[in-house]
Amino acid sequence: MRIAIDTLGGDADADVLIDGALDAVAARPDIALNLIGEPESIHRALGGRADSYSHHTVTPSPRRLDITDSLRLTLRGALASSMRTAVESVADRSCDGLVSAGSTGALMALSRHLVGRAQGVDRPAIAKRLPTASGRSVWLLDLGANLKAGPAQLHQFAHMGAALAESVANIATPRVAMLNIGSEFHKGPANIRAAAQLVAEDDAIRDVGYVEAHDLFKGAADVIVAEGFAGNVALKASEGAAQMAAHVLREELRRWTPRESAATHDPDEQARAGLSRVFNAYNPQLYNGASLVGLSRVVVKSHGGTDREGFAQAVRTAIEEVEMNVPERIARCLAGRLA
Amino acid sequence: MRIAIDTLGGDADADVLIDGALDAVAARPDIALNLIGEPESIHRALGGRADSYSHHTVTPSPRRLDITDSLRLTLRGALASSMRTAVESVADRSCDGLVSAGSTGALMALSRHLVGRAQGVDRPAIAKRLPTASGRSVWLLDLGANLKAGPAQLHQFAHMGAALAESVANIATPRVAMLNIGSEFHKGPANIRAAAQLVAEDDAIRDVGYVEAHDLFKGAADVIVAEGFAGNVALKASEGAAQMAAHVLREELRRWTPRESAATHDPDEQARAGLSRVFNAYNPQLYNGASLVGLSRVVVKSHGGTDREGFAQAVRTAIEEVEMNVPERIARCLAGRLA
Repeated sequence: MRIAIDTLGGDADADVLIDGALDAVAARPDIALNLIGEPESIHRALGGRADSYSHHTVTPSPRRLDITDSLRLTLRGALASSMRTAVESVADRSCDGLVSAGSTGALMALSRHLVGRAQGVDRPAIAKRLPTASGRSVWLLDLGANLKAGPAQLHQFAHMGAALAESVANIATPRVAMLNIGSEFHKGPANIRAAAQLVAEDDAIRDVGYVEAHDLFKGAADVIVAEGFAGNVALKASEGAAQMAAHVLREELRRWTPRESAATHDPDEQARAGLSRVFNAYNPQLYNGASLVGLSRVVVKSHGGTDREGFAQAVRTAIEEVEMNVPERIARCLAGRLA
Repeated sequence: MRIAIDTLGGDADADVLIDGALDAVAARPDIALNLIGEPESIHRALGGRADSYSHHTVTPSPRRLDITDSLRLTLRGALASSMRTAVESVADRSCDGLVSAGSTGALMALSRHLVGRAQGVDRPAIAKRLPTASGRSVWLLDLGANLKAGPAQLHQFAHMGAALAESVANIATPRVAMLNIGSEFHKGPANIRAAAQLVAEDDAIRDVGYVEAHDLFKGAADVIVAEGFAGNVALKASEGAAQMAAHVLREELRRWTPRESAATHDPDEQARAGLSRVFNAYNPQLYNGASLVGLSRVVVKSHGGTDREGFAQAVRTAIEEVEMNVPERIARCLAGRLA
């Protein structure tokens, strides 16, 4: 297995992403990385580590995709970028999957254009695995690939999400819900009600009805389907509220002392330690890596502001999906539905 | 001033709502309540309190609006309910405002039908004041009165939200933002981009551009405008994430001891106390009471699952809006724009 790494996509230096990617495969000598970016900095990062296996490759492509790049020129190949090189390496099958922390819109557009969709998929979506209070994960999609979606698309998203949850978490028949603003069947926008009808009538989907956004993290569903705009809002509002909770909590913990002897007697230090333990339970970095599902190959988008640990997690997400053949499973799943 | 109270609207017993409403006016002998519902239980609740001023009135209307009630029959008046009686008391001007913890959809429909819109308003919206990390509040609207909204409606919502923030929090020129999924001007759905253009060109609005949902609570805007579906999702996702944070935090605090001597030595008890302190900082109950803005009178919707303290807060919200003449201010503000 070979995973392409866009080392220039994130807010952090390439070294941080390269270290994260190498961490993810440190115990997996069977996995090679194709490190794409500025060769000197990649070799420098590789040289600094004891575990830099010689089977990793370095592909020079030192131009970082710029936010002002014309999408048309990027798609036509008139503007080179490390992201485009990474997508090409997956399209020509020299790599099995890729991870980039660059622009979501550009990554999706390049991937659709060069890699193509999985059979039976009309519109790929962005999906993310998130923690819930029940200890199980939930997959939320679409997170913004399609601002709007009709009933047929939402129905496809339900299949795509179920195939993803089934593949990477071995959930036999994932429980699928639609995001809505009420739990009664007659509530909500027409396209969501029509999609819910399609899902309810589909024997291949274990339908659990509507969920409202305050139940995203309660574990009542394994897959939650939304239009891209609403899914994006739900995810980001959750992240924002968690940050707000951390802010308030930091002040509170300064008034407390750990029951077991702490490594430090500095209250600020103790509060920070407690805080990091609390938020590790649902640290976005530990759940970094959104999947571009519905493409014919594995493409994973890391958060742009990721740190080393977060990027390692995004690379692990890509590895899992390659190992479980997620694109083929999704194609099979959609083909089965049409049959 | 007289405020109508629908005592049958919530999940809790009428006593809880009545006690909350009386708490809200305990120090305000100038405010009378019109308590609407089952007369015996209202008199029992009033009798149990030392502060039950004789100037409160009791209006018998013992039927609770049922979730299965036909909206058509409710609007025509063929189905009586305590909610309808409350709305009627505002429509006929015997009360200055009302608070109900019943169905949002029915409350909005009845209010539009009987009370009518403020001059210049095409579609009323639901707005809520929320805390931010900066210590300032933010008003979020629409929270679900209009699932979809065109540019002109969103532009009106911006004015309505600004008038609300200006009136009740004395903010001179509230900063208004549109909820979107990116911060660049060309991003997002067409109706939101068109609305942002209208707001940017409107000298009467202090426009601060787009905000993404993870910035709802950062204090970067005083008013955030959204379509009802997205606004509802943003609010509920935030509440859900806060609940998830509380769940994780409860476990953590059991490992800590308060620095100052606590009232109890029971770790569970201490954790509960710390938790309630933390979450009081942004307890939804302390921010209970969504405003139905754009009507010609004050109508406030309490959360259905509210407790006594939360309902008192919703009643205080209604009192503030009546004192500040919010409906007139919104009408003036929209009239000024058209002039």
